[in-house]
Amino acid sequence: MNTAESVPKNPSSCSMSPLNLEEFRRQGYMAIDFIADYYQNIEKHPVLSQVEPGYLKNLFPKSAPYSPEPIETILHDVQKHIVPGITHWQSPSYFGYFPSSASTAGFLGEMLCTGFNVVGFDWMSSPAATELENIVMEWLGEMLTLPKCFLFAGNGGGVIQGTTCEAILCTLVAARDRMLSQIGKDNIGKLVVYGSNQTHSALQKAAHVAGIHKTNCRAIETTKSTSFALSPESLRLAICLDIESGLVPMFLCATIGTTATTAVDPLRPLCDVANSYGLWVHVDAAYAGNACICPEFQHFLDGVEGAHSLSLNAHKWFFTTLDCCCLWLKDPKALTKSLSTNPEYLMSNHATNSEQVVNYKDWQIALSRRFRSMKLWLVLRSYGVGNLRSFLRSHVKMAQLFEDLVASDKRFEVVVPRNFAMVCFRALPLAISKDVSENGMAVNGQKISYDQEYCSNQLNQELLKSINASGHVYLTHAVVAGLYIIRFAVGATLTEDRHVFTAWKVVQEHLDAITGM
Amino acid sequence: MNTAESVPKNPSSCSMSPLNLEEFRRQGYMAIDFIADYYQNIEKHPVLSQVEPGYLKNLFPKSAPYSPEPIETILHDVQKHIVPGITHWQSPSYFGYFPSSASTAGFLGEMLCTGFNVVGFDWMSSPAATELENIVMEWLGEMLTLPKCFLFAGNGGGVIQGTTCEAILCTLVAARDRMLSQIGKDNIGKLVVYGSNQTHSALQKAAHVAGIHKTNCRAIETTKSTSFALSPESLRLAICLDIESGLVPMFLCATIGTTATTAVDPLRPLCDVANSYGLWVHVDAAYAGNACICPEFQHFLDGVEGAHSLSLNAHKWFFTTLDCCCLWLKDPKALTKSLSTNPEYLMSNHATNSEQVVNYKDWQIALSRRFRSMKLWLVLRSYGVGNLRSFLRSHVKMAQLFEDLVASDKRFEVVVPRNFAMVCFRALPLAISKDVSENGMAVNGQKISYDQEYCSNQLNQELLKSINASGHVYLTHAVVAGLYIIRFAVGATLTEDRHVFTAWKVVQEHLDAITGM
Repeated sequence: MNTAESVPKNPSSCSMSPLNLEEFRRQGYMAIDFIADYYQNIEKHPVLSQVEPGYLKNLFPKSAPYSPEPIETILHDVQKHIVPGITHWQSPSYFGYFPSSASTAGFLGEMLCTGFNVVGFDWMSSPAATELENIVMEWLGEMLTLPKCFLFAGNGGGVIQGTTCEAILCTLVAARDRMLSQIGKDNIGKLVVYGSNQTHSALQKAAHVAGIHKTNCRAIETTKSTSFALSPESLRLAICLDIESGLVPMFLCATIGTTATTAVDPLRPLCDVANSYGLWVHVDAAYAGNACICPEFQHFLDGVEGAHSLSLNAHKWFFTTLDCCCLWLKDPKALTKSLSTNPEYLMSNHATNSEQVVNYKDWQIALSRRFRSMKLWLVLRSYGVGNLRSFLRSHVKMAQLFEDLVASDKRFEVVVPRNFAMVCFRALPLAISKDVSENGMAVNGQKISYDQEYCSNQLNQELLKSINASGHVYLTHAVVAGLYIIRFAVGATLTEDRHVFTAWKVVQEHLDAITGM
Repeated sequence: MNTAESVPKNPSSCSMSPLNLEEFRRQGYMAIDFIADYYQNIEKHPVLSQVEPGYLKNLFPKSAPYSPEPIETILHDVQKHIVPGITHWQSPSYFGYFPSSASTAGFLGEMLCTGFNVVGFDWMSSPAATELENIVMEWLGEMLTLPKCFLFAGNGGGVIQGTTCEAILCTLVAARDRMLSQIGKDNIGKLVVYGSNQTHSALQKAAHVAGIHKTNCRAIETTKSTSFALSPESLRLAICLDIESGLVPMFLCATIGTTATTAVDPLRPLCDVANSYGLWVHVDAAYAGNACICPEFQHFLDGVEGAHSLSLNAHKWFFTTLDCCCLWLKDPKALTKSLSTNPEYLMSNHATNSEQVVNYKDWQIALSRRFRSMKLWLVLRSYGVGNLRSFLRSHVKMAQLFEDLVASDKRFEVVVPRNFAMVCFRALPLAISKDVSENGMAVNGQKISYDQEYCSNQLNQELLKSINASGHVYLTHAVVAGLYIIRFAVGATLTEDRHVFTAWKVVQEHLDAITGM
């Protein structure tokens, strides 16, 4: 078929039209079946992709095809060439990083968003996109029992961003501008940003993008004694030191559920300290914020009324596919003051002029925006608050189960108390055979003498590598206070108890193999 | 059904599971049908939504439901409550802003991306996501005949961002840091950013986010005589004036196809000027870059080898749903130097250590990223280069047709020469009835005397308002050199010749009604 250089006269009725509706239906069904089959067979693939760098380059031609290819051929290539290069975040044996939780409702929401394909920069460009976002952000805010000052109903309000990185960047720019309006724009070099050494790298990156000096980003030390939570006294000390040096403290990022260990920074005393020095407090609840729809987790948000903004990633642990970061602010005007643009072609429409509407372009970095609220709305309605709590609790229960399994084997320890659905554990040095501890061990072929902490880290690193190379499960690591720990994060939608038992068996077997027991 | 507070033991086999596969298939088919029906009936809706601010609030409950609701109910609500609040960017009679072009292939790509739902921050997190992005960016770069220095094959490389705003922010931060490394980090207040008064507001916003003073953003005047293209001499003058004032010129954003009139800045002489003063040149080809896959448009990119980076939005006019901004750079290391983060949990994997792979997290603001290359790859393979050129040419032809219609009616003028598939026109003051020009006209009930330019702008503003209120078509406006113009951008996938004829008839009829002719 080579109609390539001829211009179709009537594209929608031509079968080569990019939106021929018969083809849309036929191919759409095929894609649904393809994805359902993928989920059905997902356990047949190694969880962590086992391909080598550059594997795909030689499997595809050097140039785009001149002529069209049938969808059957393309889907065949997806199965044959793409799937082996996927690390299967949707596998029930995926326990790495944090979850990226799929659901039918989230998927359908994404389909509708893509189908309408509106560019919802302002209210007028699709009123439903803006207004549904207003509504679901109120719903979710209420489910989390956020103080009313974070809701539109209380003159605050919520917005859906892509990721936490964007949410932090936006709030940090608002905080920066608020402070510079007081101390003068030439003093940007004096502004200081605070987090702990457990704060997500998003803070450092956002600060850098916003023009804050790298030397003015504080990553305050945490210790195992506070389970790696940021101590308000350490914060106060850091702030005072900076003030003494003539610097200007500006922004604190507190975390509910850190990446390494799901540590929870104590909001109330941290906000007290930060507020007494005029800092903007952002609460990064990317992962654990989702759990706060369950009453038993809401105490982790105690004191949030002292913060200025809070974000969580519904795409992590709320069945809403990537990307969907929910950000609430007490004072959205501080944000829009920094991020508003008013090009002529978006001005002078009666809605904007009436000031009755939200124009979300002024709440984010980008102008264009997808209809992301659709997927969150579908998740909330399709499952309902009750079931959503149950789903999250089932993950927490499975993490408890794993924790119990770890605790029952003396060769392992749970490193920090489990707060949510993630267990931090490690094999203890004891797991190294008597022979090694007496005669030293071989690392990369070199015999070295025995050092307990070094060996423990090496051991856990080897253990994790060996587990992941098996393809049976996927776990990731962190290093806290010099300890190499293995993280077991439950949250993939398809995970059941049996996958947790299997994962534990895999961990044990690999330790057996490594230590020669 | 109230299983709400009970924890399902085996979620995937429970029909309430968020990923019950029978439900996934059943609901997936339903959503395909819903969207196909939406496209089929799209002409029945007013193109511009006619709802009033706040319309949705009272149609939905104040809180999220506690119990699940069936998909049938939800889709019914989408049809009844959401669709009326949509401005139908996919309507064949949508000629506003720039297109947001849907396609079956783009839709399927988004489905697969959502289905796999991987978080592709680094190579290891899903090698296929990174490597397919490498491949399609080479393919598309080659189709545009970009110089090899922008491709991986020539030590440059491409990345898919969300939007142009992000692409400009990233390159601007890279340029900023490159310059600050020479002049010292405390001199950020001296950096100057250049564009024309036609440059997208994304530049101003990105510069502000990156900490560049608002007073250091130059929007250089353009005139009708150069069709609103940036003049290299004006740029040189502005740069020299800034240098004389002790400022440091740093970044130029040149545009291929401006938002207001699709003006094309002359790349070669602009790059010559910019390069002689050490500026980073970014080429924003958001809309018109897509056309450059056709040989007859490639001359607009002449001289691009003098630029540092170039971006285009495949989600605008390349059948790849929002969002998909393609960015190529000559020196990706300048970007990654600014945007790299290396948290422990993403370090020490053999692929990264081998330096054989790209870790796209270091090429963008966010850490997490969707598998966006999937949709671009499906579009390229499903249609092929030949058809893609045909599709774009059919839009250009339809714009030519509209241009001819405008030119054939003496009451109108085409304001600037048409470069791509967008026509800028206006009703001439002559269209105002003899009565008005002799006796003045009534504006908002007040009688005012006749002033030719003012009246022409008022007339076109009234005309556009009246056209859009009819719901038959949607067009948007711009103001250039004091002239209020109406923009007619062809590019919606479903548009055919007949829609262009109808649109023109609507324009004429509304002018008739307004001018009382």
